[in-house]
Amino acid sequence: MSKDVLMRPVGFVRSPYSETAQVPKGFGAQHEAEGTIEILPEYEPGLTDIEGFSHLYVIWVFDRSDRCELLGTPPTDTKPHGVFATRSPRRPNPIGLTVVRLIGRDGPRLQVVGLDMLDGTPILDIKPYLSSIPETDLRRGWLGEAEARRRSEA
Amino acid sequence: MSKDVLMRPVGFVRSPYSETAQVPKGFGAQHEAEGTIEILPEYEPGLTDIEGFSHLYVIWVFDRSDRCELLGTPPTDTKPHGVFATRSPRRPNPIGLTVVRLIGRDGPRLQVVGLDMLDGTPILDIKPYLSSIPETDLRRGWLGEAEARRRSEA
Repeated sequence: MSKDVLMRPVGFVRSPYSETAQVPKGFGAQHEAEGTIEILPEYEPGLTDIEGFSHLYVIWVFDRSDRCELLGTPPTDTKPHGVFATRSPRRPNPIGLTVVRLIGRDGPRLQVVGLDMLDGTPILDIKPYLSSIPETDLRRGWLGEAEARRRSEA
Repeated sequence: MSKDVLMRPVGFVRSPYSETAQVPKGFGAQHEAEGTIEILPEYEPGLTDIEGFSHLYVIWVFDRSDRCELLGTPPTDTKPHGVFATRSPRRPNPIGLTVVRLIGRDGPRLQVVGLDMLDGTPILDIKPYLSSIPETDLRRGWLGEAEARRRSEA
């Protein structure tokens, strides 16, 4: 019994980034890029009432990632970490996850802020962002440690 | 050029829920179920350093959902809403997203709290939860309105 699943894009990102090097990365990276998520016409009814949400989860495909690395060194550290402890594009399944702020909708097009995807990136799903873990409850592992080291060296 | 993507499970959920009806839903649903995410042995190096994170995103497959409904009425409302504005399992791509609290790791097994998946659910990806949108910045559309109506009727 195969548990493989075939996923099909429901839309595509229109973003100002055409190359990976243009996407802000590392410490203090701000994702304030504005752009559009264009849903394919046949899925437009699925956007009904989405206008009421301020923030959305966008689940997408790293379609220009060509391999998987189970251990990799992120731009914010000098040591390798497991792929499931990072946001590396080189994942077993090339799935990206981004929280965007919704600023408007024009039919099948969602105007959003906070994109970190390349132009043309395929979208698999959109979900409403309903609640947050309080920042004070978060521990952020190697990333928190790397940030603390950086502050102490500053 | 096909943009279809074949996804392959990297592990499976061990949860106390064997049927959908057992998963808490609707207003005030608490997801405090404890269980295990078991990563397949070949992906275990990808968990390196994950212990340092308090919370994780788990991306998984609604493998017992048999259809897609672009408009559906969720348990928390009497009106239909677009699938991208709900957490319905009947999605164009059957992808689920859950934030869990990590309480321990034993090799390829992550002990977590906050599961809302059925036992045996395939996992596609795990990512560290790094930051939150402040609750005061969130608007929650039809769900916020339904909650307000419910409070005024109480």
